[in-house]
Amino acid sequence: MSDARTFLIYVENARDAEPVHRIDVASIRESANQISPWIDVVEAKTDAPNIQSLEKATFFIGGQIDKERLKRHAKQLAIVHSLNAGVEKLMPLDWLLDSAVLTNSRGIHGTRAGEFSMTALLMLNNRAPHYASLQRDRSWQRTFCDPIRGKVVMIFGVGSLGGAAAEAAKRIGLQVWGVRRDGAPHPAVDRMYTPADFRGALTEVDFLLLSCPLTPETRRVIGALELGRLRPGAGLVNISRGDVIDEDALVDSLRRGHLSGAVLDVFQREPLPADSELWDVPNLTIFPHVSSDSSVGYTAASSAIFLENVARWLGGQPLRNVVSPSRGY
Amino acid sequence: MSDARTFLIYVENARDAEPVHRIDVASIRESANQISPWIDVVEAKTDAPNIQSLEKATFFIGGQIDKERLKRHAKQLAIVHSLNAGVEKLMPLDWLLDSAVLTNSRGIHGTRAGEFSMTALLMLNNRAPHYASLQRDRSWQRTFCDPIRGKVVMIFGVGSLGGAAAEAAKRIGLQVWGVRRDGAPHPAVDRMYTPADFRGALTEVDFLLLSCPLTPETRRVIGALELGRLRPGAGLVNISRGDVIDEDALVDSLRRGHLSGAVLDVFQREPLPADSELWDVPNLTIFPHVSSDSSVGYTAASSAIFLENVARWLGGQPLRNVVSPSRGY
Repeated sequence: MSDARTFLIYVENARDAEPVHRIDVASIRESANQISPWIDVVEAKTDAPNIQSLEKATFFIGGQIDKERLKRHAKQLAIVHSLNAGVEKLMPLDWLLDSAVLTNSRGIHGTRAGEFSMTALLMLNNRAPHYASLQRDRSWQRTFCDPIRGKVVMIFGVGSLGGAAAEAAKRIGLQVWGVRRDGAPHPAVDRMYTPADFRGALTEVDFLLLSCPLTPETRRVIGALELGRLRPGAGLVNISRGDVIDEDALVDSLRRGHLSGAVLDVFQREPLPADSELWDVPNLTIFPHVSSDSSVGYTAASSAIFLENVARWLGGQPLRNVVSPSRGY
Repeated sequence: MSDARTFLIYVENARDAEPVHRIDVASIRESANQISPWIDVVEAKTDAPNIQSLEKATFFIGGQIDKERLKRHAKQLAIVHSLNAGVEKLMPLDWLLDSAVLTNSRGIHGTRAGEFSMTALLMLNNRAPHYASLQRDRSWQRTFCDPIRGKVVMIFGVGSLGGAAAEAAKRIGLQVWGVRRDGAPHPAVDRMYTPADFRGALTEVDFLLLSCPLTPETRRVIGALELGRLRPGAGLVNISRGDVIDEDALVDSLRRGHLSGAVLDVFQREPLPADSELWDVPNLTIFPHVSSDSSVGYTAASSAIFLENVARWLGGQPLRNVVSPSRGY
């Protein structure tokens, strides 16, 4: 099946992968054939690895990457591609061959993340989390809303997700402020801050939207101090990672009514346990980590990045979506 | 204070008006000064009229208009402006001087109604009513969504509210179909139906949004037949009146899972009683009739219509928002 001239793609699917997260091996094979006649494709399950193939593979694509297994058995890997955008669980990259790179799926969540962000911001402005709390209490209490146009959203992390969120926010008339490590401008962001200077601006922020990667620098970056500085009545959206925020401080701020609402898609513990206090914190709306995944095309889009990189690698060209070992994303 | 050359604006505020519905006299005075040096402004309360001023006034603006008082005391009124859009309580106009017109505030609910409609449609596409039901059950279950772009919303009633809803829906990429009594086209509506022929199109509709006035023709116009024809998994929004839909049929459709969700802002009984079964129907989100009122700018926007008409009247130009005595709106 394979000879010395062959490059092997090792496709790893989880046994219990939902259809939306299952890599379509037939489609990978077909695309690989178009790239080169010297590519073979093999599929394995996470719980039934094909060690012999893994040792010979040049390219790897999978969702739940077993660092220890790759460290032990991958001898020739050049590209390890993750179906995820967030790869914090794979850091540090000490398990990776010096000659290999880790690539991720950043960039393909943008359309969904933009729509979800627009939804969450509009929900907050229309007090949907508040009315959901009232609905749980069978209570009819009217308070009027003002238009979202002209209000300020601060987007913490203006990468792929945050950029899509910024564009969505701009389309509904928000002033968009951003926070970026290097402070570089973005076309949909009116003012850009850095992690060092964003705190001073929080007093003018109506909505804080978290969309940064989880790194040592962003872990618990939003705590009681930052939440306390937000405008009274401000709202919060988290589509990043649960550990970016101090959940206890958030709960406290919601219970005291300083924040008027929050829409969370990510949590420190996922799935959120049934006994978590978060389920019925007032004015808190819970989504089960669905802000950035689409029911259609997800793995196809991720696979397309991978296959483009396979072609680039074979052609000696620079790769896309390479994870920086130092930055962690 | 006033002489023969002066035109008087009579501002009437209710004693117990909520801030959102209180006319800002200082602001009226300032604007009037810019229109003409010959305008005076006087304020009175509904329960403490200034009859002497009322007899001399040329312009009247108020929320709770006392027809009998105006019939008896208004001798020189040219414009009577209502803070409300619906003026059914002022009909017929037999109390109005022949030389005067009644103007209303139609058109100023559009911004809020458009934003609310966009919010509700995005909530349905992102399964927010479903996740709110799961949150009530402390249950974490992921299902992925597809983008809203390209889906079909049918807007039943394309007037001021429905037109704003159509424009909002268009901005987020929906195909917009409308239903209008006369079938006249609207710039934001791709296909227009009439109440006689819309039912045949329901099988292709992803979201049905109700925004028609309540009339004998629209009472219970959406029942089991119409809901049953919608696409399986379709969603429903009602910002019209509760009596436009058969609530029992809606509840049945949600319980059977034919509709995936509904966002209701209006109900057959308001306030919704605490013992209503609607509070915890699965995948049903309840707002307490807040889709079209804004906490800021409402009276300012209504006052702006009034002041524009004052300027037009002084300049001999045609007026806006004149209520037709025969149509009643």
